[in-house]
Amino acid sequence: MDDALKAPSRRAFLKGSAAAVAGSVAAGAAVAAEPDPLITELQDWASSLGEGVDETPYGLPIKYEDDVVRRNVPWLTADPISSINFTPIHALDGTITPQGCAFERHHSGAIELSKPDYRLMINGLVDQELVFTYADLERFPRENHVYFCECAANTGMEWAGAQLNGVQFTHGMIHNMEYTGVSLRTLLNEAGLGAAGDLKDKWVYVEGADASSNGRSIPMEKALDDVLVAFKANGEALRKEHGYPVRLVVPGWEGNMWVKWLRRIEVTDMAVESREETSKYTDVLADGIARKWTWVMDAKSVITSPSPQSPITHGPGPMVISGLAWSGHGQITRVDVSKDGGMTWETARLGRQGDTKALTRFYLDTEWDGEEMLLQARAMDETGYVQPTKAQLREVRGENSIYHNNCIQTWHVKTNGEAENVEVS
Amino acid sequence: MDDALKAPSRRAFLKGSAAAVAGSVAAGAAVAAEPDPLITELQDWASSLGEGVDETPYGLPIKYEDDVVRRNVPWLTADPISSINFTPIHALDGTITPQGCAFERHHSGAIELSKPDYRLMINGLVDQELVFTYADLERFPRENHVYFCECAANTGMEWAGAQLNGVQFTHGMIHNMEYTGVSLRTLLNEAGLGAAGDLKDKWVYVEGADASSNGRSIPMEKALDDVLVAFKANGEALRKEHGYPVRLVVPGWEGNMWVKWLRRIEVTDMAVESREETSKYTDVLADGIARKWTWVMDAKSVITSPSPQSPITHGPGPMVISGLAWSGHGQITRVDVSKDGGMTWETARLGRQGDTKALTRFYLDTEWDGEEMLLQARAMDETGYVQPTKAQLREVRGENSIYHNNCIQTWHVKTNGEAENVEVS
Repeated sequence: MDDALKAPSRRAFLKGSAAAVAGSVAAGAAVAAEPDPLITELQDWASSLGEGVDETPYGLPIKYEDDVVRRNVPWLTADPISSINFTPIHALDGTITPQGCAFERHHSGAIELSKPDYRLMINGLVDQELVFTYADLERFPRENHVYFCECAANTGMEWAGAQLNGVQFTHGMIHNMEYTGVSLRTLLNEAGLGAAGDLKDKWVYVEGADASSNGRSIPMEKALDDVLVAFKANGEALRKEHGYPVRLVVPGWEGNMWVKWLRRIEVTDMAVESREETSKYTDVLADGIARKWTWVMDAKSVITSPSPQSPITHGPGPMVISGLAWSGHGQITRVDVSKDGGMTWETARLGRQGDTKALTRFYLDTEWDGEEMLLQARAMDETGYVQPTKAQLREVRGENSIYHNNCIQTWHVKTNGEAENVEVS
Repeated sequence: MDDALKAPSRRAFLKGSAAAVAGSVAAGAAVAAEPDPLITELQDWASSLGEGVDETPYGLPIKYEDDVVRRNVPWLTADPISSINFTPIHALDGTITPQGCAFERHHSGAIELSKPDYRLMINGLVDQELVFTYADLERFPRENHVYFCECAANTGMEWAGAQLNGVQFTHGMIHNMEYTGVSLRTLLNEAGLGAAGDLKDKWVYVEGADASSNGRSIPMEKALDDVLVAFKANGEALRKEHGYPVRLVVPGWEGNMWVKWLRRIEVTDMAVESREETSKYTDVLADGIARKWTWVMDAKSVITSPSPQSPITHGPGPMVISGLAWSGHGQITRVDVSKDGGMTWETARLGRQGDTKALTRFYLDTEWDGEEMLLQARAMDETGYVQPTKAQLREVRGENSIYHNNCIQTWHVKTNGEAENVEVS
């Protein structure tokens, strides 16, 4: 139970100017004596039947939420076919991302691959090369874990300064789902790793069935750790755009490695140095030298409400500042929130602690004085790592980077409650 | 890490008759030398672009999964408008239920209630009667928890013997979602409970804005414990059919109490004895006396695969038997599986232990000898309670009941892999 909820928390705002209806009640008037038209209308619902059980085989959100959708930004990539849908994190709460609005990216379009047509090959330095059908995969022991999947380019536009006025666009290349699948370790052991000899310097090369193939090299140590060959997300089959029927889940590591429509796993004695790990998904530093093998997504957090797409719609008084934090190194241990651009900090309340390498929701239950704020959040993870400022990050990485921008984000909240993406020095 | 995965688990079935493709590989033939037409086809996907990023604002499952949907059974209730959609649990894995196919039931149809129109009243024995807008609710501290919601009538048809040939229909009146909301305790404290005096014998009466109002009495002890006034499920807004914009979440207690389109909470000094807690949602025993206030959903489990809608599609050899277990009293501590109708039992592997009063996934990683099975699962919870057989339950409750059938379910699996709902004596 949260301490914040145990504490006496009688709040005055319902009796104040913010809520006229509550105000009239608080003044001691019976509701019937001063009827609010909306309360009268509320009674009306009770006098007629609603719609029957929805016969739509698969349900969709109510019409009032038609603005809470994944957003495509075609100009972000060379061709719209290789673009990105962003999760509407400004409008979500909790930690789970529904598949219907979960971040997606594909490099050569989404392919339609049926279960009967599906095959997964394991080859290379194994005792026995194998080809699995989808039905074969279901016969191996399965696991379930909630993991976040973040694109290495999430927040990438912001290296150049405050660019995009919405947390869906600055931080929405991320989703968090309960994945079900077979451990990659189980399948590698099925093929047998004796032929690979010493596993310390071995790799697996994974590729998808789409035209990009999106081949990536994964060190054997990670492949034998927590990688999943997954076929369900949030209980149901993967959606087409999430790699139906089978994708790789590489917990804590950049989303580009979570190969969709997974068709081949090759055990190799060196990294392939594919396009996706050389010309892309490397980080050019100030001196022109590129960092590579920057797989892990470092600790990061962002305030989702209030934010540019989720302004404050009430006056001064009690409010909840909320957001998301995550770390590819494990659990989030603490999130601090600043209202003054990083000069002073308050520690936020963390939501239920879920799986490692999963999103953590944080809340700061606070009072707004009606003044401007420079809102920031700062995450810490179980390794002791502290999310850096943009200045700190630029000092180490320069300003050439696209990927792995995990710096502290700032929202300028104005007195009218609107928020804007800004950069503080 | 699961022990089952650490153990050497080299399996022979891929090299046997079950997988022709794998068989040819296992026989030492190069894949290129004996090309499988499907593998050739697999290469074809790599030679053309797939579809671009899905421009549908909100995504839906791939066409191949169009049989994995919520099912309406109109004849179950007096009028189709008051019917039920069942979760397709035979086709799901993990624990989360997507909202799009999650169990729903409403007694007077689903109403469309917008956030601006929404009001929640707290009245009765409180220091200050209050009316909250939706925006008011968002200003209170929020919590997130995954909880199961099970209709008291789930498995109710089975009191009379094996009736329905599908786990979606025998056990699908249940869903499991991550709910976000304000603790009811917080709102009651906001109104002030001083006027109620000694809280021990006090109740809250909750009702919805729909024509049924679905009024239910909840003892104050539960109301101050873990009940949530919720507005999100699995991160996003509640769907219309799940009570948009606000429903009650009463963890571990029968779904009928999870009032949708919540409009009023009254603090009272006695239970209301409404229609929904007298003529319905009580259990008539053999002697004609009805049990009442049977709120808690006792420990229960069911095998979802194999099951009548999810037959075994392979020959003898390795297989995974999987299902769901839950208890309204807290955590599931153990699930046993029997292949011989309850004569002998094996302990299943539990999936990740999530929140209390939430679904737990279990797996038995086993070998099928190709013979008939009488499959059963038996759940145990943290109180030491053991899920009863149907005979044990009937002995105590008679055969007049509709609600609270948590008995052990039996599937008769035939040699061809098909499964049927049967009753064992």
